Amino acid sequence: MNLIILTEADALADGHYELSDKRAEHIISVLKCTPGSTVEIGLLNGPVGVAEIESIDESTVKLHVKQTQPAPVISPTIDIICAVPRPQTLKKILLTSAMMGVSQLHLVRANRTEKSYLQSPMMEPENQLPYLLEGLSQGKLTSLPQITLHQLFRPFVEDTWPDLELASSDDNVLLLADMDTSATVLELPQLKTAKHVTISIGPEGGWIDYEVEHWRRLGFTPFCLGPWVLRVEHALTASLAQVTLANTIV
Amino acid sequence: MNLIILTEADALADGHYELSDKRAEHIISVLKCTPGSTVEIGLLNGPVGVAEIESIDESTVKLHVKQTQPAPVISPTIDIICAVPRPQTLKKILLTSAMMGVSQLHLVRANRTEKSYLQSPMMEPENQLPYLLEGLSQGKLTSLPQITLHQLFRPFVEDTWPDLELASSDDNVLLLADMDTSATVLELPQLKTAKHVTISIGPEGGWIDYEVEHWRRLGFTPFCLGPWVLRVEHALTASLAQVTLANTIV
Repeated sequence: MNLIILTEADALADGHYELSDKRAEHIISVLKCTPGSTVEIGLLNGPVGVAEIESIDESTVKLHVKQTQPAPVISPTIDIICAVPRPQTLKKILLTSAMMGVSQLHLVRANRTEKSYLQSPMMEPENQLPYLLEGLSQGKLTSLPQITLHQLFRPFVEDTWPDLELASSDDNVLLLADMDTSATVLELPQLKTAKHVTISIGPEGGWIDYEVEHWRRLGFTPFCLGPWVLRVEHALTASLAQVTLANTIV
Repeated sequence: MNLIILTEADALADGHYELSDKRAEHIISVLKCTPGSTVEIGLLNGPVGVAEIESIDESTVKLHVKQTQPAPVISPTIDIICAVPRPQTLKKILLTSAMMGVSQLHLVRANRTEKSYLQSPMMEPENQLPYLLEGLSQGKLTSLPQITLHQLFRPFVEDTWPDLELASSDDNVLLLADMDTSATVLELPQLKTAKHVTISIGPEGGWIDYEVEHWRRLGFTPFCLGPWVLRVEHALTASLAQVTLANTIV
């Protein structure tokens, strides 16, 4: 935990918070804090800062936020469209998305999404939250990615996506991670000045031709991540790393 | 499993192989093969190809390699120097290294490496192998990364490393993933033509100043992965993705 994420549920009053879960355990056992010590904190969807430990009573920690500053801004803003993955993979996608500052995560049912994935408890927001919080804590960020599940592919690409403000924004660059192209993100000049990027990442085995055709028709430009056959979670990390890098070119 | 990796231990004679572990299970239950079906195979540290299923007897599969071709070559060749991580992280590092074609992986004890990590069963080669094989199978590669454990930092940087042929090769670019620089890999012109790259990746919390100083003195150039605070396994994937991308610039 690089940052202790505090939520409204932990708040007492006037900047005082009480923790008694694994964050308290981390403060006591790993950080070895005592009353008067300070810890780095982040207020969920708010600023980061420093809090002072007021008291430690067995497994309960009380702390007081002393100082705050705006949380880091990750630029460009990146949204991810990801085929609904198996539950174990979804956990990694959630953690990575939060850790690397993904803004919106659209989980879309793909032809190769197994039906059972959609019935997994991991599709429930309350089961996703711990992985998102772990990601924020690791990445020292505070903004929860906004997660939306789209149970059907065609209504998403035909109705939902085109209606989103970003879909038609000139500032938004649309990318499709694709093994069938040799063009890299460095060959996309529009990325250099992009303020916003949306990346579509397929399921294990990839999007089927019908799905790829839809992405292309919607203006998504295929790009090649490299010579590898990656798992979905690695494709996500590699995409974010390459797109952000390409965006630094002056 | 994108590739069924076959080893000498599985060999009968004349290109015939027998499997009865989870690879057999995968061929039977996931690929739903029957005698006469073909599967994509890779011979460990050898070519890839196609094998025909000869017989399936309960949980034992016999197959015959029909055709082979050279395994894909990942370019540039990348070696990783990585601070010995916690055992759970090491599993991910091994899988990712094999999947993304890392050539050599030097695990070096860092100041921030906890002593207990070195006593973990995961430091034993036979316990590492399953994760490497899983990575090769995912990445459709066959060359095992060469793993070396260096129990002490100073002898490694002062004696072992300088004696390696690659340490002083003009063809080898030495990089240090570093959060304290703003220079990206795109600002390193030597990467464009590099045939070989070595990347040093620190532990959780980073290399300490003393260690950074050693890397710099050995010629490692610091680079910034991006605005994130990443876990070691994500830093590895992101480094490989960015360095390989930078190497594609003509």
